[in-house]
Amino acid sequence: MKRKVTLKQIAKELDVSISTVSKALRNSVEISEDTKQKVQAFAKLYNYKPNNIALSLKNRKTNTIGIIIPEIVHHFFSKVIRGVELVANQRGYNVIIGLSNESFSKEVINMEMLANGSIDGFIISLSKETLQLQDYHHFNETINQGMPIVMFDRVVNEINCDKVIVDDFEGAKNAVEKLIENGCKKIALITTKDYVSVGRLRTQGYIEALKNHHLDLKSELILKLDDNIDYEVNLEALVKEIENLFKSNKKIDGIFAVNELYALTAMRVAQRLGYKVPDNLQVIGFTDGVLSKHSTPSLSTVSQHAQLMGEKAAGLLIDKLESAEEDETYQTQIIASELIERESTK
Amino acid sequence: MKRKVTLKQIAKELDVSISTVSKALRNSVEISEDTKQKVQAFAKLYNYKPNNIALSLKNRKTNTIGIIIPEIVHHFFSKVIRGVELVANQRGYNVIIGLSNESFSKEVINMEMLANGSIDGFIISLSKETLQLQDYHHFNETINQGMPIVMFDRVVNEINCDKVIVDDFEGAKNAVEKLIENGCKKIALITTKDYVSVGRLRTQGYIEALKNHHLDLKSELILKLDDNIDYEVNLEALVKEIENLFKSNKKIDGIFAVNELYALTAMRVAQRLGYKVPDNLQVIGFTDGVLSKHSTPSLSTVSQHAQLMGEKAAGLLIDKLESAEEDETYQTQIIASELIERESTK
Repeated sequence: MKRKVTLKQIAKELDVSISTVSKALRNSVEISEDTKQKVQAFAKLYNYKPNNIALSLKNRKTNTIGIIIPEIVHHFFSKVIRGVELVANQRGYNVIIGLSNESFSKEVINMEMLANGSIDGFIISLSKETLQLQDYHHFNETINQGMPIVMFDRVVNEINCDKVIVDDFEGAKNAVEKLIENGCKKIALITTKDYVSVGRLRTQGYIEALKNHHLDLKSELILKLDDNIDYEVNLEALVKEIENLFKSNKKIDGIFAVNELYALTAMRVAQRLGYKVPDNLQVIGFTDGVLSKHSTPSLSTVSQHAQLMGEKAAGLLIDKLESAEEDETYQTQIIASELIERESTK
Repeated sequence: MKRKVTLKQIAKELDVSISTVSKALRNSVEISEDTKQKVQAFAKLYNYKPNNIALSLKNRKTNTIGIIIPEIVHHFFSKVIRGVELVANQRGYNVIIGLSNESFSKEVINMEMLANGSIDGFIISLSKETLQLQDYHHFNETINQGMPIVMFDRVVNEINCDKVIVDDFEGAKNAVEKLIENGCKKIALITTKDYVSVGRLRTQGYIEALKNHHLDLKSELILKLDDNIDYEVNLEALVKEIENLFKSNKKIDGIFAVNELYALTAMRVAQRLGYKVPDNLQVIGFTDGVLSKHSTPSLSTVSQHAQLMGEKAAGLLIDKLESAEEDETYQTQIIASELIERESTK
């Protein structure tokens, strides 16, 4: 068998990034002539076939949607996929899934692979590394070549396409206002570093709720965790961070956490430190996870309606694929989140 | 855009099953001449391109592995995928995923789609419907055409390929023997109907453990649930079934359940009926789920090492893809399960 050379191998061989190879093959002005020549010569030598979307689109319709998500062991993303599947099946489309594993280069490679004639359009949520690097050339060029993309949850303004998002800001604001209405005076926020867009919006919702109720914003009550650490595996590190939060801030009476694991771990740490949930500490998380409803006490949470998000994304994409005219307008659908009150709040 | 006609559309148009269309296009002797002619004429008319694996294999290697799993909202399968990804990435392969949603025809359609030049080989766990129908032609023909398949977890003897399984029988036997050693005299089994192979093996393990310890096998202590019902959604139906089990059998002191949801629900129903776990009722589940370790009390469980299963499956497949000679021997790797003791057992 003759092995097809991959983007990754070219990048490794020439000691440049995958992004550089991808751009050089597309003759991008961002790349020096010298590098472009080297990359193109190498690609030619090893018979690399660049992604030729325009050609494949002219030739056939695959009736297949490609999904690219950051990770699979995550209830939110699997529920989104279930929603995409549902609408895709109803409308006669198949679905195939690629994982970026939160890696920029894997995202590029997966798009390259699927766009090469296997699918008609993409549904994508950005990887963390892509958000950090702010390198979106692979999306914009795919769209420019005529293949539609719908983004969900982790989206950015720099990419012009249909989007489906949850109202992270409103959802967070409502959750924190609920804590305030329930009598909390000293509410801590457990969130992620700011490059993940949804974490930033949820942080802003927290700040807005405090402001609306004339409560002081205290930076020592905001714990920003490094989302690159897999705390599911390094649970002890998470426990330590949260213990420090409680120990350096006495009388915390409310916690808003931007995901399920942070919220549940906070609840458990607090109980070990002698807090009673919900009597003197109320906790709200943010997620569609399964743990929240099965934990003791069960966790109040902001539901993102993940399946609905997938359904909307699939609807938008298929509408675009089946529309007769070339539609250059894009819409952003916002799904209203919902505060589900369980035992961790009064 | 010219729409490519799909297997499903041909089946619908001619009012035959997808399996019949698939077999007719491959000229199977199982299908009548009349039907074959009709299907082939229709396919020709609408320019249907059948899956031509042999051709695509000769032309190129994609460095991509296709995974087909029954469902995505399931911690076990997502952990298997993580294992496949890990080994695939180390060895320079991409992974794409298709979902059968437990449907035979979706399984056939997904294989057709991916085998059509997108991938080099498959890693597959069978859908429930395929197990019920016992129609495995799509696997055997794919293998005959030279594309390797590795199956995991839900496997059958009728397909000759590499397999990775967990020792469901041994795992179940060990779990039930643990309950017996811990003093349980009246152990109920909550399992699925027998067409799901792993459910059957776990049931046999339960029976063997009772036999080894000279305990009577009582059919009224075996609750066989219809696995086609999504009990995660219809939790009340599951609760009712388990309540009936407890109400019609007094003094149950041990429960072995073949999955996490059954075990957790049994624990909750029992607690509501006044049982104390683990004082007068001990419970063991079977899974790699996240709920077990976060429930109260935490659930003892037979771990399947799902990620390791994925790693082994990927290793077997890539070895086959990269071996110089045509290797016609197949192996079945058995992963030892592990009993993880938590608070639901003494």
